[in-house]
Amino acid sequence: MITPPGVDPEAFESALSEWRSIAGEQWVFTDAENLDLYRDAYTPFRNEETEIIVAAAVAPDTAGQVQAIMRVANRHKIPIYPISTGRNLAYGGSAPVLSGSVVLDLKRLNRIIEVNERNAYVLLEPGVSYFDLYRHLRDNGSKLWIDCPDPGWGSLIGNSLDHGAGYTVAPHRDHFDSHCGMEIVLANGEIVRTGMGALPGAETWQQFKYGFGPTVDGLFAQSNFGVVTKMGFWLFPAPESFLEAVVTAARHDDIIPLVDITARLTHSGVMNSNILLGSPMRDAALRDPDLRELFLHTDQAEVRRKLDDYAGSHKLAFWTSRLKFYGPEKVVKAQWEHARERYSGIPGVGFQEGELLRFPLTEEQIAGMRDQVAIGVPNLSIFSAISRSTFNPTPTMGHIGFSPVIPMTGEAVIESHRVIGQELADMDTTPAFMTMPISYHSRTFIILIAFSIVEDPAINRKTREVFRRLIKVAAEHGWGEYRTHTAFMDDCAAVYSYNDHSLRRLHETLKDAIDPNGILSAGRYGIWPRHLRKK
Amino acid sequence: MITPPGVDPEAFESALSEWRSIAGEQWVFTDAENLDLYRDAYTPFRNEETEIIVAAAVAPDTAGQVQAIMRVANRHKIPIYPISTGRNLAYGGSAPVLSGSVVLDLKRLNRIIEVNERNAYVLLEPGVSYFDLYRHLRDNGSKLWIDCPDPGWGSLIGNSLDHGAGYTVAPHRDHFDSHCGMEIVLANGEIVRTGMGALPGAETWQQFKYGFGPTVDGLFAQSNFGVVTKMGFWLFPAPESFLEAVVTAARHDDIIPLVDITARLTHSGVMNSNILLGSPMRDAALRDPDLRELFLHTDQAEVRRKLDDYAGSHKLAFWTSRLKFYGPEKVVKAQWEHARERYSGIPGVGFQEGELLRFPLTEEQIAGMRDQVAIGVPNLSIFSAISRSTFNPTPTMGHIGFSPVIPMTGEAVIESHRVIGQELADMDTTPAFMTMPISYHSRTFIILIAFSIVEDPAINRKTREVFRRLIKVAAEHGWGEYRTHTAFMDDCAAVYSYNDHSLRRLHETLKDAIDPNGILSAGRYGIWPRHLRKK
Repeated sequence: MITPPGVDPEAFESALSEWRSIAGEQWVFTDAENLDLYRDAYTPFRNEETEIIVAAAVAPDTAGQVQAIMRVANRHKIPIYPISTGRNLAYGGSAPVLSGSVVLDLKRLNRIIEVNERNAYVLLEPGVSYFDLYRHLRDNGSKLWIDCPDPGWGSLIGNSLDHGAGYTVAPHRDHFDSHCGMEIVLANGEIVRTGMGALPGAETWQQFKYGFGPTVDGLFAQSNFGVVTKMGFWLFPAPESFLEAVVTAARHDDIIPLVDITARLTHSGVMNSNILLGSPMRDAALRDPDLRELFLHTDQAEVRRKLDDYAGSHKLAFWTSRLKFYGPEKVVKAQWEHARERYSGIPGVGFQEGELLRFPLTEEQIAGMRDQVAIGVPNLSIFSAISRSTFNPTPTMGHIGFSPVIPMTGEAVIESHRVIGQELADMDTTPAFMTMPISYHSRTFIILIAFSIVEDPAINRKTREVFRRLIKVAAEHGWGEYRTHTAFMDDCAAVYSYNDHSLRRLHETLKDAIDPNGILSAGRYGIWPRHLRKK
Repeated sequence: MITPPGVDPEAFESALSEWRSIAGEQWVFTDAENLDLYRDAYTPFRNEETEIIVAAAVAPDTAGQVQAIMRVANRHKIPIYPISTGRNLAYGGSAPVLSGSVVLDLKRLNRIIEVNERNAYVLLEPGVSYFDLYRHLRDNGSKLWIDCPDPGWGSLIGNSLDHGAGYTVAPHRDHFDSHCGMEIVLANGEIVRTGMGALPGAETWQQFKYGFGPTVDGLFAQSNFGVVTKMGFWLFPAPESFLEAVVTAARHDDIIPLVDITARLTHSGVMNSNILLGSPMRDAALRDPDLRELFLHTDQAEVRRKLDDYAGSHKLAFWTSRLKFYGPEKVVKAQWEHARERYSGIPGVGFQEGELLRFPLTEEQIAGMRDQVAIGVPNLSIFSAISRSTFNPTPTMGHIGFSPVIPMTGEAVIESHRVIGQELADMDTTPAFMTMPISYHSRTFIILIAFSIVEDPAINRKTREVFRRLIKVAAEHGWGEYRTHTAFMDDCAAVYSYNDHSLRRLHETLKDAIDPNGILSAGRYGIWPRHLRKK
């Protein structure tokens, strides 16, 4: 048996025995077969000694059991790593940052506590997945939609706390922004409710975010300050209709007005969904090395002219912007008409209008949709999409994603692709895929550059090097990651270094105060407890 | 000269002298005439010994000076109370919670650092008022709107940190929700930038809220954890047009579908502005004691019938809901048309449509508008409106506002007015005014019950008693205040008592960690430093 680092084997045995009496004999795991389930399926340390391992796992059934488990862990100073469902593949999955930690698996806390149809919210536990909530709403005839990320098997709470995002409208598609109210078990076992939840019998815990006094909710996302055991989320009342449309622009420099107009429509609320930019020209470049080379020199006017000629002669749109409208039919049509007017100032602009969908759809209509997340239907089709899109000849065992935040301007779109493209070329690296910018959040784009994990450790080692290099290069250009795999949390946090890392020092001050024994999720998002902190 | 509590007079003299050398001789105030300016103009302790006083005031010019001042204060353990412009009358103004504190007046930090037209944001300092920003944008031909509260003379940062709200669209009308990125000077003088601001040279400090790791921004609102010296805000691109409309409903129980439909339209994004409910019947009750009495018994069906008869025979609408639409003309018209369809299910519903305004307006058109805050134009007309609306025969010297958060349901509207009305009747108290619910925030209503402050301390004492009683009664019904006057912060915080005040204990743990000498804004929002904490 593995003992967690810094823990006396006898103390660990004693803790395991206490946990068994709290959670039940069968919910404390120490055998290799069960612990294997907590390994990171997409680990970049595949087949290496440095792969993160787990000493044990405990799966409580209630917040009260979480409290009791934390008190035991705190007394014995045992490192604990809470997970909701551990499905955040590409970001570390269910494996901790500190090898040898004990996973606190919250999958049994899977209750949907309240669905409020009139005020459109839900209160639930961390073990509830997007699939679970979707089915629950559908089976109960609810008129509420959820917003789900690409794979639908994950936890709403887990995804929200990792700042995950989806594809319908604001604020719902920003999964942390759409939360309202938390219940948290602190390291010492104390239970806290945030916002209006601190008022016993409050009528607005899931409706008013702030409560009275400072708002602490943000502390418990992307961090290691507590175990979230309940969270509320605002839901989106099912719209009457949905219209998808694509705007196409013909020339390289059109990206600037294309994004400016898109940003203006978004900021003014005429469009409320995320925007997926595309580029048939960049897709062509994936198959044409000469064209790919040209894209590394778009800072030269002559190159941009060549690219425009190529687009013209191959009848390719240079850029596309995929828009989505949700709402009453007449509103949706007016919004799209207004958007067309705005975009029509770009010479040669084109429009493709999808079929207007009216809700509810039949199960057959849903099953036939290419992009179910756009209408809040959780699914797992992203996994086959990813494996199709890889250009890597080696069989992939998973992937990790580099995801910098860039401004919502055409200049940033061009510059980020050029800079990162050049860096990848210099390092002779082909990613599994590199997306065009997506506005997951209200006012920025994220680019997702995914790298395959393979069986060969030498290739994975190089991937890790490339990943670390990209973090630095991006930071030099003012672009930071919004989230990352556990293996790179220290590297990403390190570039957020303003005033000699004063924000990190503040995080550490908070960590020492809230979790003085440093037992919770050591190293998560670059925050280490005092006894493990590097000098 | 007054010395702050617990501070040695010699140490205080020494601090004053150091502050003079930091901020300049003329920016450290200790004379009675200047310190009078920092008294709470609306203090509920008017003409009483217990009125809060100020020992000194320091007005630095830069964040660097704030750092230096805080270091001195920390060394001498001098209580400091930062204010932005101190214009939050009715909530304590520029006066501290702890009498004898030194006011850190940030009015000279009044720089508008960046206005970004393409991505619609601003970065500014705490001394910048709504008037300042409005004029700056207008004078520079900006196409961006601001959202301002009822008086426009306050600070954007101050109002945001107090969870203030305004009258245009979400997220802008929630002044904390619309912020993006902070710079904070901690008690020890350390300077921190939050979100992407922690990444040197970040391109998205005012565009991406989270940064990497935990988000600490919420800690610095309604609290005493730091001095905010810069903040970014998202601005609203000037819409093409604006339409105001009023929906009227004829009978008492119509409030239930009226609010349900309003909530659904809001949650689904068809309406994005705040909603002002009204009631000509309740207005009539202000002038008719018999009618007022009836409103205390709306839990009886017979009483509701009588009220309906009264409304019918006096040709009064029972309820009104004022809606506002902003956007392209065709979108606005489609939204209003859809809203009418939804409301038309209420028998006897009526609609009044305002003139559709097209922007930009001329200065004359703006000057002629009854409700300039609805189009983001700061003004001070609320002050004359308040004095007109008072029914108190004694000349008013100001007012304080009790403002509970209630759910967005018709039942809550009825119940909150009945319960609070009964309580006021039992205590034989007439407030200056009591509003119908306003949806300042996305998913809740706030009712504002204002009490006049007068010259007679006996009356003010009773007002304070009434205020404290209302806090308790509201809490028993699940309604907590969203913000309060400094005199009642302990009382309001006390009802947020879940799990024997565990949220307060967490706040105190954070306070002790971030401000170990407890020098910053002791008592603000019920958070006291260790040495002043009540057992």
